[in-house]
Amino acid sequence: MPEIKLQHILTLVQLLAKGARHNFVEVTTGGLGKNIGRSQQAASKHLLDLETEGYIERVRRGQKFAVRVTDKGFSEIENLFASLKSALESAPASIDFEGTVVSGMGEGAYYMSLEGYRKQFKEKLGYEPYPGTLNVRLVDPLYMTARRELGRHPSIFVDGFSDGTRTYGWVKCYRATIDGVENAAALVLERTHYDDSMLEVIAPVSIKDSAGIKVGDKVKVRVQIQMP
Amino acid sequence: MPEIKLQHILTLVQLLAKGARHNFVEVTTGGLGKNIGRSQQAASKHLLDLETEGYIERVRRGQKFAVRVTDKGFSEIENLFASLKSALESAPASIDFEGTVVSGMGEGAYYMSLEGYRKQFKEKLGYEPYPGTLNVRLVDPLYMTARRELGRHPSIFVDGFSDGTRTYGWVKCYRATIDGVENAAALVLERTHYDDSMLEVIAPVSIKDSAGIKVGDKVKVRVQIQMP
Repeated sequence: MPEIKLQHILTLVQLLAKGARHNFVEVTTGGLGKNIGRSQQAASKHLLDLETEGYIERVRRGQKFAVRVTDKGFSEIENLFASLKSALESAPASIDFEGTVVSGMGEGAYYMSLEGYRKQFKEKLGYEPYPGTLNVRLVDPLYMTARRELGRHPSIFVDGFSDGTRTYGWVKCYRATIDGVENAAALVLERTHYDDSMLEVIAPVSIKDSAGIKVGDKVKVRVQIQMP
Repeated sequence: MPEIKLQHILTLVQLLAKGARHNFVEVTTGGLGKNIGRSQQAASKHLLDLETEGYIERVRRGQKFAVRVTDKGFSEIENLFASLKSALESAPASIDFEGTVVSGMGEGAYYMSLEGYRKQFKEKLGYEPYPGTLNVRLVDPLYMTARRELGRHPSIFVDGFSDGTRTYGWVKCYRATIDGVENAAALVLERTHYDDSMLEVIAPVSIKDSAGIKVGDKVKVRVQIQMP
């Protein structure tokens, strides 16, 4: 049995689109090849393979073939469709991080206290964050890669602003849970002194107190992302 | 570039199901092979191919790999899903027949006149058929194959009955249009003198008069079928 290739599947798809589920439809291997971006010879081979596998029936009519997709062929497509659907739907819309709690530089508390951020957090996150961010040092290069790419995902976007003296950068917020504390948010900052090994997390409450964690403890952060 | 096989797709599906869309997840080639019904060696090769194609990223961790599906890999699955969805949805739920009008043996008119059928037609089809069936002799073996298999599809089922003297067989009805006459129905009869080359059609009106056709004319019949 020749292995089923993506091209075979796409050929079946083309045949179904032409109505070959219940009707014998006339196809030329040239036209079919064009549809799947392959040569006439390749399309001809695909039809032969599909017939050998019992996925299609075909009858020669002069230079053309009349082709119908069999129940077996249709089931193959239906099963694959179900697998893909399940995989696409089950793909969890979250990114998991693991790291160690480290003490910050006090910057987080300062920025959290600025009115320009506070009112936006309240409006967009639904709460005023506890003053101070929890800093999680990621323990694995894989998490750093994920951290670096986090900002690509659609976020709750807190605009930068100016207080007349200086400007403050934007903040992308991602809803997160950290060691059981719900309603937290992981931050991607336009301006930060930290590199990709640091994940900054805020919450309406003190995460350290609520989760009973202290500097040096290992924590898990699950960041929710929205499908684009 | 190695050709993409169904097995590659199924491997991506497995990885997505494990959450590898946004997270690096640890997989063993043994476990992956089991999931897709292939050997550990085959699964290992699939991962290598997928990495070469840029569909996954992977990082070795001792005996295992941490794997994540790339945007390119995810797009491939999404595109295939869209193709399959469109093919499955576009598959027209009708079977086309072509044939020549022939004169019947008067049987149709007799049976149509029986109260046991008439009341069921009225109830289930929504009309009392014009007395007499139009007999269409199919011109092509492909249509005969389709005619023979028509009865497999879900039908509007008219029960057989007994009038005390003899019994009458069931009739499977399929809504159809014939040369522009809507609301017709093609029949599959439990008992008939005809073979698979004959398609019997009824309608609320005389099809011959309405469509202006006579014995010997070529006609097209489109039979609607319901998806099971």
